[in-house]
Amino acid sequence: MSTRDGRSWMPGAGPEADLPCVAAITPSCNVERHTSPEPFDAIVIGAGYAGLIAARDLTTSGLKVLLLDGRDRLGGRAWSTDLDGHPFEMGGSYVSDVHRHVWREITRYQLGVKAGPERKDEQNKAILIRDGEERHASQDERNRLLRSAVMKIFNVDGAYGKLVMPTPLDEAALTVENRTAYDDMSIADRLAQLGDGLSADETAVVSSFVVMCTGSRAMDECSFYELLHWWCLCGHSPDAFFRNIGVYQLRRGQSSLARCIFDDALGSGRLAYALGTPVDAVRDGPDAATVRAGAGGRAFRARRVVCTVPLNTLRRIAFDPPLPADKLAAADTNRRNGGAKINSRCAGADLRSWTCSDPDNGLICYSYESGSAAAGTTNIVGFGQYPEGELDDAAVGERFGASIHESLRPHVKQIVFHNWSRDEYSNGSWFFPGPGLVTRYLDGLRRDHGNVLFASSDWSTGWRGFIDGAMQEGARAAAGIVKSLRVERL
Amino acid sequence: MSTRDGRSWMPGAGPEADLPCVAAITPSCNVERHTSPEPFDAIVIGAGYAGLIAARDLTTSGLKVLLLDGRDRLGGRAWSTDLDGHPFEMGGSYVSDVHRHVWREITRYQLGVKAGPERKDEQNKAILIRDGEERHASQDERNRLLRSAVMKIFNVDGAYGKLVMPTPLDEAALTVENRTAYDDMSIADRLAQLGDGLSADETAVVSSFVVMCTGSRAMDECSFYELLHWWCLCGHSPDAFFRNIGVYQLRRGQSSLARCIFDDALGSGRLAYALGTPVDAVRDGPDAATVRAGAGGRAFRARRVVCTVPLNTLRRIAFDPPLPADKLAAADTNRRNGGAKINSRCAGADLRSWTCSDPDNGLICYSYESGSAAAGTTNIVGFGQYPEGELDDAAVGERFGASIHESLRPHVKQIVFHNWSRDEYSNGSWFFPGPGLVTRYLDGLRRDHGNVLFASSDWSTGWRGFIDGAMQEGARAAAGIVKSLRVERL
Repeated sequence: MSTRDGRSWMPGAGPEADLPCVAAITPSCNVERHTSPEPFDAIVIGAGYAGLIAARDLTTSGLKVLLLDGRDRLGGRAWSTDLDGHPFEMGGSYVSDVHRHVWREITRYQLGVKAGPERKDEQNKAILIRDGEERHASQDERNRLLRSAVMKIFNVDGAYGKLVMPTPLDEAALTVENRTAYDDMSIADRLAQLGDGLSADETAVVSSFVVMCTGSRAMDECSFYELLHWWCLCGHSPDAFFRNIGVYQLRRGQSSLARCIFDDALGSGRLAYALGTPVDAVRDGPDAATVRAGAGGRAFRARRVVCTVPLNTLRRIAFDPPLPADKLAAADTNRRNGGAKINSRCAGADLRSWTCSDPDNGLICYSYESGSAAAGTTNIVGFGQYPEGELDDAAVGERFGASIHESLRPHVKQIVFHNWSRDEYSNGSWFFPGPGLVTRYLDGLRRDHGNVLFASSDWSTGWRGFIDGAMQEGARAAAGIVKSLRVERL
Repeated sequence: MSTRDGRSWMPGAGPEADLPCVAAITPSCNVERHTSPEPFDAIVIGAGYAGLIAARDLTTSGLKVLLLDGRDRLGGRAWSTDLDGHPFEMGGSYVSDVHRHVWREITRYQLGVKAGPERKDEQNKAILIRDGEERHASQDERNRLLRSAVMKIFNVDGAYGKLVMPTPLDEAALTVENRTAYDDMSIADRLAQLGDGLSADETAVVSSFVVMCTGSRAMDECSFYELLHWWCLCGHSPDAFFRNIGVYQLRRGQSSLARCIFDDALGSGRLAYALGTPVDAVRDGPDAATVRAGAGGRAFRARRVVCTVPLNTLRRIAFDPPLPADKLAAADTNRRNGGAKINSRCAGADLRSWTCSDPDNGLICYSYESGSAAAGTTNIVGFGQYPEGELDDAAVGERFGASIHESLRPHVKQIVFHNWSRDEYSNGSWFFPGPGLVTRYLDGLRRDHGNVLFASSDWSTGWRGFIDGAMQEGARAAAGIVKSLRVERL
């Protein structure tokens, strides 16, 4: 099984396609041979985690579901390819025990979790770059700088945010009084507020780290509230913060989990699906909605529709009646996230303690060992930002390859990535909102539109922008449909 | 719907039975009219949360399940009765966002969560009793004492336990090198180690708090490792620790959640059930097991059995072939938890900031406002310990009623409780192990026995003894069965 998504690039050889992926589904469609295709109880648009969980919960609750996606694989913005028996994560990948919806699925499907190898506190393995000057430090020093910076940044109230946002319970977090104040504040504003409170070293390390969180070097474009919300979800603890956003990954890769959920739904006998079938129109009626999808413009009918496409692609689908103004305004306002994630397969196992913090690098700002790798090799993941405009795959390989730190570059055998800069189904990478967006539009984004429900990590009340938020939203949509259809049947 | 479990007691009026409960199921059995009763894919013994989740996951995965329980209601050691439209929790009740399996169900069934009313920091509302002397303090002072004591207790390594038990991820927590050392240590040992490190006030407050955790005033009978494991699951943070074990409850009570899970399984059309039908024997064979249950000794057959009865009632069931020695030794070794939970309905809303810490009270050691209550009333929950031997319901009412603090007693209109001291299906209250038990027996308790799987919160690797651990175990058992039966079918 392979997917058209993602590329492998080797120095001098250019990009190669057709990466193996257990979440690429063959046959790509079972609608033709599905015994009773219509009317479905629900059509789920998008087979990312929100769509997969919605489809699984709906089918296992006894409802007939059609799952549609434009891609040839499951997982949306989270998927993995397997090379030499080791998963390489192309998008969202980090999990943790506080990602409660993910964790329940890990228990359900009995999947293993691994931490990145313990970084040994070797001298000179942490490269810190500041204002063009480079120095080598111990991991311990780097961690101390980052931790200290993060604690200062989140200490907005003398109580590390506990007064401003006391509880991570979703509902409560939403009603925090001064949410607006912190949402109108950008991360740049917050750093400016701290002024000299951060040392130059702290600023450099945390600036590169923030790119990993936001996908953007332009900190004035990123809401400070959003980052504070992550912090609150981690119980206002720096240990938990770092552990929950960038350490643990699935042993067999994200696509193994996506496949488990899909197989579970399929096993119900009530799942029809069609991959490679992008939706272009949804027309709602009093009792059912019609969804037009695929090259032939085929129409499917269902009593409910769950639309899980990312905020930045809401405009791709023509809704009739049209979407309300607030949803459209949110889609038009939201920044297109240029966050980049580049996997470098390197020769040499002694690179496993290597990290690099390079905030002014135009492309890769924050790099560290991530995930298992074949014996004698190391997988270094680099987080950064695509330059303005779209890059073709060859250009991504060339330009990001050239931006890898010069001490690492000779060891790089292969670069593996998904070119999110020109992905028509996500229109950018993960969700990280600009100032004011969440306060203004979150409620509107979560609202149903006739028989159409909207479920995406982009408007989760919990781990928004994470896999967990997607699963939460999928579960919410399914629960709403199960409840309303049961009432209709009474 | 009402249950035979639980009692309401009013001063001078004696105990009354038949409390309303949404998880009492009528009719109590659907086996007779179930279309294809045998052979089942699985029989689940016990309809507590482990059994309910197992039954729900199995039936929604397409398998035919028979769910058996001796009680007339669902929920096992967690259930609620509704009085004046407010739930009173009779057993396990506290939830939190880090209880990841519970939280997923809260999302799935769209249930609300509430915190106890914010305790206002009024003067003199916290009663602290030490060596027979009583003084009135502010909530703020009480909280400071408790927090400071707890941090000292868990600071076993100068890093608040982070070195000893660095990660709450289940698997890793199990392989901690020095688990044995801390498991052989009792809570009394740990307090002795601290010696004068705790002030007399800290010792008094934390001793009453520990009774709420362990259900026992005999701290030498309780493993320190177990408490340290809770702390680790809370990310080594005192805020998280208190928030996760005694603040949030379900708005409509635990029985509302149990009922949702049951209805979900029933909606699959694949759930047969028989309440009031205790199991007394399980005979295993090469392809199936036979379960004998109920007054008539009726036999049911299934390819797999999930046994979810608590450790202290494992001996109730005659297994053939007999259980391995380690499971039996664990059942024989485990202390019978005499933890008591007594709800007092009090007149007067100004009691909502009232707390009492009374470590040497023979019966109720730790009391505070808990849960919603009708206008003008307050529900005070008291945690303590049943005296040695069984008490009948009248004696529980009389003796616990008389042990309520004298300043509260005149306000008490009604006491509501489940008499766990003489409950044949749990043989005690929640699980809190003695020193050494977990290290010695956890792996053995989790092991399958032929076609019989064992799932109970008592041997969860996560929130052991909590509702979350029960759900985790139920999900684990269901996942194992789904996987093995699918393989058999290939």
